[in-house]
Amino acid sequence: MKIEGKNAVLELLKTDKEIDKLLLLKGAEGSLGRIFALARQKNIRVQFVDAKVLDKESETGRAQGVIAFVSDYEYADLARLLEPKEGARFVIVCDGIEDVHNLGSILRVAECAGADGVIIPKNKSAQVTGAVVRISEGAANHIRVARVPGVNYAVDELKKNGYWVYALEAEGEDLYSCDLTGDIALVIGGENSGVGALTKKKCDKVLSLPLLGKVNSLNASVALGIAAYEAVRQRR
Amino acid sequence: MKIEGKNAVLELLKTDKEIDKLLLLKGAEGSLGRIFALARQKNIRVQFVDAKVLDKESETGRAQGVIAFVSDYEYADLARLLEPKEGARFVIVCDGIEDVHNLGSILRVAECAGADGVIIPKNKSAQVTGAVVRISEGAANHIRVARVPGVNYAVDELKKNGYWVYALEAEGEDLYSCDLTGDIALVIGGENSGVGALTKKKCDKVLSLPLLGKVNSLNASVALGIAAYEAVRQRR
Repeated sequence: MKIEGKNAVLELLKTDKEIDKLLLLKGAEGSLGRIFALARQKNIRVQFVDAKVLDKESETGRAQGVIAFVSDYEYADLARLLEPKEGARFVIVCDGIEDVHNLGSILRVAECAGADGVIIPKNKSAQVTGAVVRISEGAANHIRVARVPGVNYAVDELKKNGYWVYALEAEGEDLYSCDLTGDIALVIGGENSGVGALTKKKCDKVLSLPLLGKVNSLNASVALGIAAYEAVRQRR
Repeated sequence: MKIEGKNAVLELLKTDKEIDKLLLLKGAEGSLGRIFALARQKNIRVQFVDAKVLDKESETGRAQGVIAFVSDYEYADLARLLEPKEGARFVIVCDGIEDVHNLGSILRVAECAGADGVIIPKNKSAQVTGAVVRISEGAANHIRVARVPGVNYAVDELKKNGYWVYALEAEGEDLYSCDLTGDIALVIGGENSGVGALTKKKCDKVLSLPLLGKVNSLNASVALGIAAYEAVRQRR
């Protein structure tokens, strides 16, 4: 859903509604300064665009330099997602998955592998849009997705709640030598940058898949699928 | 590479060159009858197109109703691919993977998991085009791909050569209870139709992944990645 115009967006920013992103007219930062500041404060993704782009996106023709994209998707509450449950807990964390195909595919993997939920950051990450729901083959409607200000915050919360947090990355310990039967979270990085350096440090371990060829990485959702199903196998 | 014009394509059809597909002008089946018959005989994919499409694809402006797409990719010889080697052999068979993204992703998985090669049918399958090589992140250049007239032929050849052939499909035996340490071939089906009924029957077993959610299937390359890495795990 789109909310357009200065006042409407300002009011929106004062609520708790989840905002996917904000389009701001380039050069209008001054007159829209308050909106920009509030958006930054709330960690909302802001894109500066030309008048052309803004006009094209506007449904009312009265955007006044600003359009907010409000999420229709009902995100889960992080605290509730991490609550203790019967049996071992299993959460997936996405770090910089910006491609909607990758995110959709990851949600599908997570749902099939019986994960409790997926955590995504509000910034530098694809959000659960209609396209993502479609690509996930509907899995997005069956798995809980929680949003966090940043991935490091998520890792801290996971550790506080008793999870073992493992980053999936190159040059780590062998995946198959790791006990995945407890409460675990797997952190998967984006295609370009992988899991962030600080995040890797915060994780309990970095786990790697054996790569037996000359190409040195697997697609994010494939790598996650392999690791998640190793957890499934060990837990049976 | 494109070869255009009646005589050029006729001569091409008499050679052993690998032809990805043939574009024929709709309604010109009569005057191009010999080309059509030869193409059918050689099991080459034929697409009937409008004059507009043909003109757009033509590089010479003299297509005379026919354009052949010759493969630049060097396919491997099936017999050599299946030869005995030191250590257990491991081959992937694609059944109806028509999407170039899926094929590229499958080649990447196969290469990373150390498979000896991938077998694809000449019909109803994406071929190894430039797009597939790119999507595979170059894996297509490091793994052997052999083409066969049909998937059932490939399964027969694999069995003759001492492979255990397993179809990855729903409602089969549990993947994790199957010994994958010998000479094996994994048959992965396309997104829409899965592994063909006759092919499934020909296979030694149908193997399934546990699906713990409500969505009842995984993407082809993810499912293959999980099964291929279970083989990697067992073989160590």
